[in-house]
Amino acid sequence: MSEDPVQKPENAVTAAILVIGDEVLSGRTQDVHVSHMATELGKMGIAVKEARIIADDRDAIVDAVNHCRASYTYVLTTGGIGPTHDDITSEAIAAAFDVPYEFQPQAKALLEDYYKDQDFNEGRQRMAKMPRGAELIDNPVSVAPGFQMDNVFVMAGVPSIARAMLQSVLARLDGGAVLLSRSVSSRATEGQIAAPLRAIQDKFPGLMLGSYPYYRNKGFGLSVVIRGTDVAQLDLAVAEVEAMFRALGQEPERDEI
Amino acid sequence: MSEDPVQKPENAVTAAILVIGDEVLSGRTQDVHVSHMATELGKMGIAVKEARIIADDRDAIVDAVNHCRASYTYVLTTGGIGPTHDDITSEAIAAAFDVPYEFQPQAKALLEDYYKDQDFNEGRQRMAKMPRGAELIDNPVSVAPGFQMDNVFVMAGVPSIARAMLQSVLARLDGGAVLLSRSVSSRATEGQIAAPLRAIQDKFPGLMLGSYPYYRNKGFGLSVVIRGTDVAQLDLAVAEVEAMFRALGQEPERDEI
Repeated sequence: MSEDPVQKPENAVTAAILVIGDEVLSGRTQDVHVSHMATELGKMGIAVKEARIIADDRDAIVDAVNHCRASYTYVLTTGGIGPTHDDITSEAIAAAFDVPYEFQPQAKALLEDYYKDQDFNEGRQRMAKMPRGAELIDNPVSVAPGFQMDNVFVMAGVPSIARAMLQSVLARLDGGAVLLSRSVSSRATEGQIAAPLRAIQDKFPGLMLGSYPYYRNKGFGLSVVIRGTDVAQLDLAVAEVEAMFRALGQEPERDEI
Repeated sequence: MSEDPVQKPENAVTAAILVIGDEVLSGRTQDVHVSHMATELGKMGIAVKEARIIADDRDAIVDAVNHCRASYTYVLTTGGIGPTHDDITSEAIAAAFDVPYEFQPQAKALLEDYYKDQDFNEGRQRMAKMPRGAELIDNPVSVAPGFQMDNVFVMAGVPSIARAMLQSVLARLDGGAVLLSRSVSSRATEGQIAAPLRAIQDKFPGLMLGSYPYYRNKGFGLSVVIRGTDVAQLDLAVAEVEAMFRALGQEPERDEI
């Protein structure tokens, strides 16, 4: 077995996800954006380093956006770009970038056309107001667009719309080395595997090994997840994890992930 | 109708939730802690102001814990207190508080007793190591305890264990004025209600009105959620929201929440 570490990429491509909305923080709505976006970004080799759920509060949005856009390659936000008074994300992003909040001409034209037989009222007009310099993100579901400012991508909160917008956003991102994962489960306990798993981690410093206990109908079990960019190293580590489980008298199972 | 604003409590009781774990950030695991904890805290009048999902990374944990414990009344964390090498939450919390990471005598006694017929190995012993001064949080599911340091409550990541620990934690918290909510739904669109909803919000400055569009099998609709601590004001606002929907030719429905 090679002892050479698989080097982590020097210029890792990273992202933060900001879920904006009082309804998620109150517990009323279960967030579904983080796991979907993280999975899609992961397929492109973009590692989500943190996700924050924040309130419909201007200062909270400004602080989180400014922290994250300086810290990570990309920032993806969802929520708060609709027509009602509690939709303040666009205005807050303008404040974060210190630029005017004003009509975006293409967005205004799109919405004027969409509402040509209805009242293009003040609320609907709000959906055409963005930070100066915003580039639109297409909304194939309900027209009102999201937008990009520099490395910040601002999407709707309704899951079906957010998913559609994400597809346009992904096409604009540069990916990194794709992190592959393998998962091996058994009925062993974490207390039994702690020392041998640490030894395997030490042998493969370029991989990331994690242990995730679960409790399902049949009782406790655990999954060891192995992540890395080098298939050969991953396969070697999976074999060692399986041997570790067998040495404890537990038959391992490879999980589909 | 009274025009007196319902004042928001001056000394609001607030909380932050920190979900610690690479498996949630990678998208592999769907977070279930935030909505459950936020709901339970909300029942006690404790408002969750932000939730962060962060990596199993010492610096990330230290930064988030120190920011949040200074900013909010309470901080609740889940994840990273098991026996394996990637369980680094306890050590990181010790670093955040700048105190030694060492055996907690009661935790050590509990675990020694639990493992008296098995190998109380180094991994299992890790679950008895905590920041100096930690007070235990009972784990009725699998013995290994969580702990409290000042206003920070450190719980397990396995949902069944986290839920059990949360019950002990809630008993230690001082609640605030309970925020009540009402929700009224209809098939109106946000663009139709934006102006009248803002007018109702302006009339009830002590309440928080939010509009949440949804897309279900039958098409788009929206829920207006009204939150506040004063039942009489809530009832008045609900009646105004219902009248607003009816004026648009849409029959409102009160939602069970």
